[in-house]
Amino acid sequence: MPERDVQYLCELAMQLRVDSVRSSDAAGSGHPTSSMSAADLMAVLFAHHLRYDFDHPDNPANDHLIFSKGHASPLLYALYKAAGAITDEEMLTFRKRGSRLEGHPTPRLPWVDVATGSLGQGLPVGVGVALAGRRLDRLPYHVWVLCGDSELAEGSIWEAAEHAGHEGLSNITAIVDVNRLGQQGPTRHGWDTGAYARRFGAFGWHTIEVDGHDPGQIDFALGDARNTRRRPTVILARTRKGEGVNDVDNREGAHGKPLKDAEHAIVELGGERGVTVKVSPPEVSRPPHTFTGGPLALPSYPLGEKAATRSAYGAALKALGAARGDVVALDGEVADSTKTEEFAHAFPERFFECYIAEQEMIATAVGLQVRGWVPYAATFAAFLTRAYDFIRMAAISGADLRLIGSHAGVSIGEDGPSQMGLEDMAMLRALHGTTVLYPCDANQTAALVAEMADISGISYLRTTRGETPVIYEPGERFPVGGSRVLRHASDDRATIVAAGITVHEALAAADLLKQEGISVGVVDMYSVKPVDRAVLNEAATTTGNLITVEDHRPEGGLGDAVLEAVSELGPRVVKLAVRGMPGSAAPGEQLADAGIGRDAIVAAVRRLL
Amino acid sequence: MPERDVQYLCELAMQLRVDSVRSSDAAGSGHPTSSMSAADLMAVLFAHHLRYDFDHPDNPANDHLIFSKGHASPLLYALYKAAGAITDEEMLTFRKRGSRLEGHPTPRLPWVDVATGSLGQGLPVGVGVALAGRRLDRLPYHVWVLCGDSELAEGSIWEAAEHAGHEGLSNITAIVDVNRLGQQGPTRHGWDTGAYARRFGAFGWHTIEVDGHDPGQIDFALGDARNTRRRPTVILARTRKGEGVNDVDNREGAHGKPLKDAEHAIVELGGERGVTVKVSPPEVSRPPHTFTGGPLALPSYPLGEKAATRSAYGAALKALGAARGDVVALDGEVADSTKTEEFAHAFPERFFECYIAEQEMIATAVGLQVRGWVPYAATFAAFLTRAYDFIRMAAISGADLRLIGSHAGVSIGEDGPSQMGLEDMAMLRALHGTTVLYPCDANQTAALVAEMADISGISYLRTTRGETPVIYEPGERFPVGGSRVLRHASDDRATIVAAGITVHEALAAADLLKQEGISVGVVDMYSVKPVDRAVLNEAATTTGNLITVEDHRPEGGLGDAVLEAVSELGPRVVKLAVRGMPGSAAPGEQLADAGIGRDAIVAAVRRLL
Repeated sequence: MPERDVQYLCELAMQLRVDSVRSSDAAGSGHPTSSMSAADLMAVLFAHHLRYDFDHPDNPANDHLIFSKGHASPLLYALYKAAGAITDEEMLTFRKRGSRLEGHPTPRLPWVDVATGSLGQGLPVGVGVALAGRRLDRLPYHVWVLCGDSELAEGSIWEAAEHAGHEGLSNITAIVDVNRLGQQGPTRHGWDTGAYARRFGAFGWHTIEVDGHDPGQIDFALGDARNTRRRPTVILARTRKGEGVNDVDNREGAHGKPLKDAEHAIVELGGERGVTVKVSPPEVSRPPHTFTGGPLALPSYPLGEKAATRSAYGAALKALGAARGDVVALDGEVADSTKTEEFAHAFPERFFECYIAEQEMIATAVGLQVRGWVPYAATFAAFLTRAYDFIRMAAISGADLRLIGSHAGVSIGEDGPSQMGLEDMAMLRALHGTTVLYPCDANQTAALVAEMADISGISYLRTTRGETPVIYEPGERFPVGGSRVLRHASDDRATIVAAGITVHEALAAADLLKQEGISVGVVDMYSVKPVDRAVLNEAATTTGNLITVEDHRPEGGLGDAVLEAVSELGPRVVKLAVRGMPGSAAPGEQLADAGIGRDAIVAAVRRLL
Repeated sequence: MPERDVQYLCELAMQLRVDSVRSSDAAGSGHPTSSMSAADLMAVLFAHHLRYDFDHPDNPANDHLIFSKGHASPLLYALYKAAGAITDEEMLTFRKRGSRLEGHPTPRLPWVDVATGSLGQGLPVGVGVALAGRRLDRLPYHVWVLCGDSELAEGSIWEAAEHAGHEGLSNITAIVDVNRLGQQGPTRHGWDTGAYARRFGAFGWHTIEVDGHDPGQIDFALGDARNTRRRPTVILARTRKGEGVNDVDNREGAHGKPLKDAEHAIVELGGERGVTVKVSPPEVSRPPHTFTGGPLALPSYPLGEKAATRSAYGAALKALGAARGDVVALDGEVADSTKTEEFAHAFPERFFECYIAEQEMIATAVGLQVRGWVPYAATFAAFLTRAYDFIRMAAISGADLRLIGSHAGVSIGEDGPSQMGLEDMAMLRALHGTTVLYPCDANQTAALVAEMADISGISYLRTTRGETPVIYEPGERFPVGGSRVLRHASDDRATIVAAGITVHEALAAADLLKQEGISVGVVDMYSVKPVDRAVLNEAATTTGNLITVEDHRPEGGLGDAVLEAVSELGPRVVKLAVRGMPGSAAPGEQLADAGIGRDAIVAAVRRLL
């Protein structure tokens, strides 16, 4: 590399450090030292290797850059400024109310794919983007992920390493800023980049160890990474946290705070400069590959037959896949249980087996939707808890995801509590902008699966292991936010609100009560979030007695959704839910033991009246 | 090994297979094929290497055996039968209602340390038990963990591998049953035990590859594992799923179901035998090491001063550590933020730095409490979502854990949504047998931290980043399930129910309303689960108007706890909570923008009246 280039890159890196110090100083908080260690790495990437059209962030040929170490946001914003994407003035709004330059990057910025800030997530999501490039878009964009060394302790990093290594994803490069210091003190491996190289190497990655402050070494490594075939590359860059300012350089206790004397630090860094960086746009641009679709022919189930909603999900997803070329599916090595296997067999190009790595499955799905694909990701409802932080961050990203949790509730039977999804509705409802759907029959399931394709944000479908009777005609519509009144009479003395498997228990209970001369209404609340306030309000003001019944913990599920909806009207509400710790037993025994079967409903109505 | 021994071990293994087939057949469900692959491994372990006193499962010198592949429960129960711990009759109650032989093992059995069945958790917990043996108990027991090959895809396995490798835990051995087939089909690496050996080797483990059906090789490997110094050992055993029965041997599609023709299979396996195994008890037994305690001198904060509840947690935990030698602490490399650092500095022997690996942190804590230690594990409330599945399984285990989530809510300010714990109460409340505490001042925090030491099950303390005024006297008691009525008058027209940071907003709102001549009550609901029904019932029946306000999502938190408590009384309830997606802003701005500050409370009261 000519000396002039080296000098320019050093100047650019110094400016990135200065701007990281300035923005954090203006904000009164932030992570300048974690930005300073990675400044040379990103300077060389932007000047020589990134292919990105900042004027057209939606150019499908653009490379992708993900800051997995999201706290280095001052560096990212300094880069945007140097590239001319934002002004110096906007850069100094960092972390201020209303600014899109948040403490950790979010897709409020058009150049940011996903929100980061929970460590160990950027690389997994990057693998999803790289898979989209390779298998779906079929475009040569490259995915660059800046990682911290501390976050390599997260298991999700190794799920991603396994996934990318096994798929041979040469279109992703992890750049690890090995600055030796975490938030709290030294990392396990300090500057031993060899320790990380051995690990990544074992997972099938091409590894390069460099001095992260040497532009020539960095340049060579980035070029090597882009040119490497058949394997992902990790660049392990030995750096110094706070590089360039003696007061914080490689010092403990300097994490996550502005520099004490920013003015002096800026002088020490050589002062403000007017260096800009011209990021090259992609050389070729062509539209992404698409898969053909056709008319939608959802499966249909005759009234009165029995079918498992999980099976209806599988059949409906296959039908949807035939209708829409943008629909893709993921599974966590349980596709024969969730029934995603039907899609997998029909559309292997659009199916992603994520093995037993639920975090990586969600991250991959997030990465696929970054590129506009419409992912459905399924595992047991219980095991979605494994990926809660990833779902949480996906909500912050505003990602459009469709999640399916099978084997919900105690009704799975003999497998016992470890396999029972009993907290899934609570977990999903508590996230911003989510939709929670819980069908009770196969036709309803098919309709909802199709509807989910067009729902923004995270939508969740809860399915049941066992067969349930078909109670709706094929082709009926079940809009999000709606419900179905299944029993209603003017002399109703109470209303039972159920969803999924308990709908059938509620209907049976209503029949039993009828025999005693007690008339009760039954509502199928298939849309748990948003919930049908109108129907609930009417029940609250007419019968005034509501019984909710759900195969879920009492906290955060259907009952709470109902309580929330009617809280200002003040009806009496009895919530039936799974309050004990189940063991193994047959499905019917489980429902009875948990107090959510027909007899328990009858008893609750009697008690309430 | 003498031929006679080999023959005995083969006979024992065959009986384990027969019994796995029999119990699954009797149950009509279960995982016989996953049991059959590991039968030789476990036969040799029980006959020659395990040191365990089945008559005294509480013998502190006992080895620990964890079935990380919990679905191989038929094998485990067959082993218990062969060892004389259970009868054949009980074995055949497998998966039946009321039986303690559940589909996946739980500590309802005295020889089971933790519930398994969510894959990738047994090894991480085993690392916790091994750490207890090494650093706390200081006893030479060995921890044996039977893993499946499929579950090696879970990142948590690699968090555990890193933790054990870095600590040089030679007292743990992972025995991986590499049977090539997952639930859904072949694993990524099939029978390539070298692929796994490279990975474990890179993480610092001693690796041994064996034929998992050769008793001599297994015996040598187990002996080698026990004798290895300074490193954990993994035995990668090539096996055949369903070994011994041609119909299922190494066949896809035979996972998780009883054999079609059990009778024929039993004949093929050589029929039922009366083989028993004598498991040797530990050679030496001495009591575990203990750390001395002393009187409890909790920190105290003068009324009216300001202090962060997270700081009070740190100071109180240190005081508790001085008082009780059984208290230990863990942190996810954020001890300077959570304030666990105070304990870490005072009692380094009892502090466990788990780095940024929240799943491993929870698993380690679970392992430590298996051995009777009293763990407090802390990270940001937001990042506890990373370990939700581990917390869920800990609840099924009936583990006694104390979790601390700092930086709760939007009030953290500028860092933005990725760092805000906004779903933590929903997540923790939805688990069985949990306690959720959310203090509003430093003295209350100190009292609750001390109280948590004696709470059974999982207790959770939610702490706040910023300083809040001290409103309680030092030494006041705050029992679990209680609350504090801070404002109350006979002419109250509404009651504000708050917890944590919103208590101070509620008090300010009450003062503002007072100036308008509107008297409202204020309750500090520091115990969110269980919640103080008596106080809420009184408020519901006197003022009839409740306003809940919380720095948390509207689903599953304080508001829902209140609604649940008063649901059958039917007061009007207005729930104030964080409904939008926050960005970066100052703490006061965040509270106002989220609609949970004093002005929003005042407005809500006005609207309600």
